[in-house]
Amino acid sequence: MSDLADHLRVTYLVAADPAHVEARAEALLLEQAVELPREAVRDPWVREHILGIVEDIEPAGPGRFRVTIAHPAATTAGDPAQLLNVLFGNSSLQPDVVLADVALPASAAARLGGPRFGLDAWRALTGAHGRPLLATALKPMGLPPERIAGLCATFARAGLDVIKDDHGLADHPFCPFAARVAACLDAVARAADATGREALYVPNLVGTPDAVRRQLDLARRLGARAVMVAPMLLGLPFLAELAASAGVPILAHPSFAGVLRAEEPALLGTLFRHFGADAVIFPHHGGRFAYSRATCLALADALRGARPGVRAALPVPAGGIALERVAAVLGDYGSDAMLLIGGSLYLAGDALLDRTRDLVDQVAALARAAA
Amino acid sequence: MSDLADHLRVTYLVAADPAHVEARAEALLLEQAVELPREAVRDPWVREHILGIVEDIEPAGPGRFRVTIAHPAATTAGDPAQLLNVLFGNSSLQPDVVLADVALPASAAARLGGPRFGLDAWRALTGAHGRPLLATALKPMGLPPERIAGLCATFARAGLDVIKDDHGLADHPFCPFAARVAACLDAVARAADATGREALYVPNLVGTPDAVRRQLDLARRLGARAVMVAPMLLGLPFLAELAASAGVPILAHPSFAGVLRAEEPALLGTLFRHFGADAVIFPHHGGRFAYSRATCLALADALRGARPGVRAALPVPAGGIALERVAAVLGDYGSDAMLLIGGSLYLAGDALLDRTRDLVDQVAALARAAA
Repeated sequence: MSDLADHLRVTYLVAADPAHVEARAEALLLEQAVELPREAVRDPWVREHILGIVEDIEPAGPGRFRVTIAHPAATTAGDPAQLLNVLFGNSSLQPDVVLADVALPASAAARLGGPRFGLDAWRALTGAHGRPLLATALKPMGLPPERIAGLCATFARAGLDVIKDDHGLADHPFCPFAARVAACLDAVARAADATGREALYVPNLVGTPDAVRRQLDLARRLGARAVMVAPMLLGLPFLAELAASAGVPILAHPSFAGVLRAEEPALLGTLFRHFGADAVIFPHHGGRFAYSRATCLALADALRGARPGVRAALPVPAGGIALERVAAVLGDYGSDAMLLIGGSLYLAGDALLDRTRDLVDQVAALARAAA
Repeated sequence: MSDLADHLRVTYLVAADPAHVEARAEALLLEQAVELPREAVRDPWVREHILGIVEDIEPAGPGRFRVTIAHPAATTAGDPAQLLNVLFGNSSLQPDVVLADVALPASAAARLGGPRFGLDAWRALTGAHGRPLLATALKPMGLPPERIAGLCATFARAGLDVIKDDHGLADHPFCPFAARVAACLDAVARAADATGREALYVPNLVGTPDAVRRQLDLARRLGARAVMVAPMLLGLPFLAELAASAGVPILAHPSFAGVLRAEEPALLGTLFRHFGADAVIFPHHGGRFAYSRATCLALADALRGARPGVRAALPVPAGGIALERVAAVLGDYGSDAMLLIGGSLYLAGDALLDRTRDLVDQVAALARAAA
């Protein structure tokens, strides 16, 4: 099927009666392309160049099917937002359809650009090799910049690789973005004088596109070497635009991403990666979120598995990882991952430095044992 | 509870065992604010000014509860994206929680701005009074500008009030945005010479924020008097930014808004309105989408019902409305609505003008009968 080499392949999980699944697949194809009944598509050029084909229908359990549709890449106009329209625009509103998988042709992947820095950049920026990266979040919202920076200093002295803002740290009057970023960058630099290795502080950018661009410019001027955004909150097309111009690696947060009827590996894995996230935070199984282990592993593979025309991104399991489960998490993801651990460190209270140091030592020991 | 006057009230539909629902509500409150266990929130100012309260827990069927949480407005930093973080950031990822309702204090509503033109503007722009507005979409994707404009001319001559681009019409090489918008604006102007009333052509803006702003500028320079965007595709915070500066009414399309865990009236109604949509397209019940009648009526109320500090927006039922159901649709929504009808007109083929004229006449007759 070489004539379909430039098609997007989209797989949907469809609930349907076996007798009607072919008609349902045809309706799905039409909905995502022309949004008209086939008999109302009168133009032969449109039928040939815009309408794709239903490539495959596979059973996927009782009353469920995996329907793969190939859409001509020309439908996307080379535009990130229009790509989403074609993949899952109107059909996202239909309760019998879930977006299950997306495979872009190399031309479309290259046009989106994917991670501009990717998995390896996080190792280069932190000097963490042969083991998973270790990260935490600065919180809670409500603390002033000097208190946030104090926590940042503690975590940096304890030896964490990456220290990011909580996604709820915005440009609040009680903790302005500029003051916070400056204080935290100063904190990691001072800690590096003591430890000999500088932790990577990652500020959270949140707001309308104009506000996020101002925050990005400011963060870069202050010396930030990576930034975090929540793509589903800000809009995936804006992620694509940011990735093209940010100049630093982008860590993606899943906030607001649960409102969509899409399988997690397809949305947080494949799409976030293609749109330009260099690392993606997602809920690890067994924490506060109900993702299964299989979902998490599939998501990690969607982020860092070999795919034509796109760099690997770094999986960042998070969301209530208890300290005693760190070994199991390492077993699940291996070295090419960043463990993001927050609440279970904060519970240490005044013993925060020691508990964080213990974690750093534990991961180093586990990595040595595995090597 | 006058001290909570400046709080956001968010209602979640929560699946929980009655014995555990209070603990679940507490966890939800913490997740949306500080993302830490309460005992790790050591700062008294944070406990007092950042943590809200669980205001109400009501049974909502077996194993289900409506949990209302009041969050201090200060948590939002006055920012549209951060507001979404607080309303439904991380908890959107938890399968036992659905965003069911949102009530903003007047200060937050005013800051977002809501519809800048609102329901009445659509009547003023079209001259349609005392009856629902009638709209259709230009499609299919794949036709060149002159063919799209030809359809636009036919619909305008037939007397439709609003003629919008299909949301899948992007800036394709085979139908460039600038050429299409110019041709369609020309088509409605020429038709107005014959009919004495100019139809409102609404171009679709789709792309990254930069691309959308370029399209908006171009459309306005060419004379467009309204525009369409898909807020969930582009990002709700970008809608807020656009609404503040667009200078023309904004029609919102539900593409990519597939709601698994947010109830439709809360997302497409309350939130789209507060973020600045002047009219909102949504799937009418009985068409290609499975929205119930009750959902559609609640959505319409969320858009145009009286709410403090925010203008009414125009409900636009759509999505496979058959011509013979028009009377029923009018019965459901009354006059303050725009009926968006596409496929069932296009099936007329060469009789498009006549079938559209019949629709216009039918609605006028129904409105006269109801008056």
